[in-house]
Amino acid sequence: MDSVEKKFLKLGAENAPGQEGRQNNDAMNLVGDRIPGRSVDFSHGDVDAFQPIPGSLDNFVEGVQVGGKQAYTEYRGSKEIREITAGKLAAFTGSKKIDPEKNLIITPGTQGALFLAMGSVISRNDKIAIVAPDYFANRKLVEFFEGEVVYIEMDYFHSVSGAGLNLEKLEEAFKAGVKLFLFSNPNNPVGVIYSPDEIREIAELAQAYDVQIIVDELYSRQVFEGHSYTHLAAQNILNPENLITIMGPSKTESLSGYRLGVAFGSSEIINRMEKLQAIVSLRAGGYNQAVLKTWFHEPEGWMAQRIAQHQAIRDDLVTKLRSIQGFKVRSTEAGSYLFPKVPELTVTIEEFVKILRIQANVIVTPGTEFGPEFTDSFRMNFSQDHSAAVEAIDRIGTVVKGYRK
Amino acid sequence: MDSVEKKFLKLGAENAPGQEGRQNNDAMNLVGDRIPGRSVDFSHGDVDAFQPIPGSLDNFVEGVQVGGKQAYTEYRGSKEIREITAGKLAAFTGSKKIDPEKNLIITPGTQGALFLAMGSVISRNDKIAIVAPDYFANRKLVEFFEGEVVYIEMDYFHSVSGAGLNLEKLEEAFKAGVKLFLFSNPNNPVGVIYSPDEIREIAELAQAYDVQIIVDELYSRQVFEGHSYTHLAAQNILNPENLITIMGPSKTESLSGYRLGVAFGSSEIINRMEKLQAIVSLRAGGYNQAVLKTWFHEPEGWMAQRIAQHQAIRDDLVTKLRSIQGFKVRSTEAGSYLFPKVPELTVTIEEFVKILRIQANVIVTPGTEFGPEFTDSFRMNFSQDHSAAVEAIDRIGTVVKGYRK
Repeated sequence: MDSVEKKFLKLGAENAPGQEGRQNNDAMNLVGDRIPGRSVDFSHGDVDAFQPIPGSLDNFVEGVQVGGKQAYTEYRGSKEIREITAGKLAAFTGSKKIDPEKNLIITPGTQGALFLAMGSVISRNDKIAIVAPDYFANRKLVEFFEGEVVYIEMDYFHSVSGAGLNLEKLEEAFKAGVKLFLFSNPNNPVGVIYSPDEIREIAELAQAYDVQIIVDELYSRQVFEGHSYTHLAAQNILNPENLITIMGPSKTESLSGYRLGVAFGSSEIINRMEKLQAIVSLRAGGYNQAVLKTWFHEPEGWMAQRIAQHQAIRDDLVTKLRSIQGFKVRSTEAGSYLFPKVPELTVTIEEFVKILRIQANVIVTPGTEFGPEFTDSFRMNFSQDHSAAVEAIDRIGTVVKGYRK
Repeated sequence: MDSVEKKFLKLGAENAPGQEGRQNNDAMNLVGDRIPGRSVDFSHGDVDAFQPIPGSLDNFVEGVQVGGKQAYTEYRGSKEIREITAGKLAAFTGSKKIDPEKNLIITPGTQGALFLAMGSVISRNDKIAIVAPDYFANRKLVEFFEGEVVYIEMDYFHSVSGAGLNLEKLEEAFKAGVKLFLFSNPNNPVGVIYSPDEIREIAELAQAYDVQIIVDELYSRQVFEGHSYTHLAAQNILNPENLITIMGPSKTESLSGYRLGVAFGSSEIINRMEKLQAIVSLRAGGYNQAVLKTWFHEPEGWMAQRIAQHQAIRDDLVTKLRSIQGFKVRSTEAGSYLFPKVPELTVTIEEFVKILRIQANVIVTPGTEFGPEFTDSFRMNFSQDHSAAVEAIDRIGTVVKGYRK
């Protein structure tokens, strides 16, 4: 087997969210009947239930009307859109200065930003620290670039304040030569926010050991009542040339269909990301970039209402999930994810996920996508039709009865 | 310097088409005055002069209206759009069978297709054969994936029929262990078509030496009078699992602003490309994919007229270029590129390109982007306003006088 073959064996996408349609369905032994009900796909948000920011399509159409200048932007994105976006991001995150010429790149989604940032930093055999659990692509990116994954555990069930990151383990890893630390905040899949102390300590450790940080803040606008959010970029502890922050309008704002994201921070890393973008896909779709005008420029009250609606769904789902015997779940602090832990089952979590899909018309993502040890958890994106989501939890409760050990 | 730093040093994008705005302009010693005239950017086609296929924006808007299903397609692209597209590509190329489930992926532009295909095949230290001259990203892709570039020369000025590829050199390279051969047909930057004999021999050699082939057929619909085109995929010589063909609607069809491309062929390579897509940018923009409905479905006569208009521009430009003392150019057979050779100058080709931009408002791409030895050539994309393009050649003729050796 050659090395590219080995690399792709580790890159399985079969259980990745949205790929369920490509799974092999045969030979599943179902216990009990199929349970009727409205199909709910918790693998990602439902942009029909929560529609894109009003005016986003108008911005796209205006982009098309601008013509060639909008179709062929610089690889790092349209200068005008970078200027508008940099100001909004500096204001939102409290970052001292985001120079639109040097410190910002527009990418095809935050996935694009992650790929470009990781590819710009990782050399073969570099030690890269990632959190367990965290976004499923993080591990795959390290493996694709032939780095070495160092997991830092997050004890999210036992932390009283903050995410519960093991900071001693993080320091040990930094001491042992980790080059880069990548984490999502709020955490995907758990939906918890790192506390100000955790963020300060992460920044201090990275500064002390000269470690680079990529922080994925995709869901940082959707913070629920009683919680506050700390932007690492605003701490002024870490050398800003060692930091990249990633955001985008794909989630709360429901603009995923436009494939837009941004990365800001280190000018050196942004330069490399642009060079890589040039050979990966040239640029984020030119006309699509114009849609960023609507971002952080939503109609008055729109964002507050969206957050309130999600908080209401969260409340109902958390209550329902906790009422299923053996289920355990930490309530979401920000973002649209829940990561319930299930009781011991007679089937693997991957099998359980398939069963749920076939028997109850409910799609969730197995915990093992987020770290190898999460064999007893699954992720749900609850940005869904409220009542359909609630009903789906009832079906999950029924299905689980048939497979309890 | 660590290995990622070295890698990025080779990935310079400063002279890449479209990046001219980021160049340092100081300290250029201009000979003579600035020459007024309409600015022409020959680094890429002008989608204001040649507008996107009628109806493409309508297809996008319909995609937005479809909603979540269109926003979140499988990573390889919407099943419905793959089905429509596979049939059209099989008919156009004469390929026996393109199974939309197995043999086709929709990508963010043909650049995306190239990146994913190369990343799916190249292991570190693999020998990869590419043509000199050929598309500027080919070399960079091999270097990014840490393969070893083996150049195969194309003697385009002396070939009487065909592109002039050195087939003996190609066989030697295959014998010496080349794993993959990548080439564009029609060739970018020269605009020549490989003859049926050349294509047959390439396929036979690859089959004999078990070499994989990626053929970039981006411009294969825009074939001028008196020429015919041979699709490698239709030859049934090479094992179809060793072949990937790349196409897209960014050029002749002017849809570059939508970032759409496709790759078809080997199911194994397409599988890997999808896994890689999952971590690179998830998918081609969901709504954007809907625009592929318009591809190969243009209004009656639209494509014929577009080709005729380009042929007329080509004729005028070739005549004009040949009238400049010391210029030499092979006439385009397909596509929108010309790759004139200039007389000996007192400045390097990169300097000359900057001078042209500053002194004459004309942007072209230095030949060195297409192969290190092309220090005496530049590339022009003549998909431009006809009269503006013609006038720009006059200005090039005037500027060249000041820098002739």
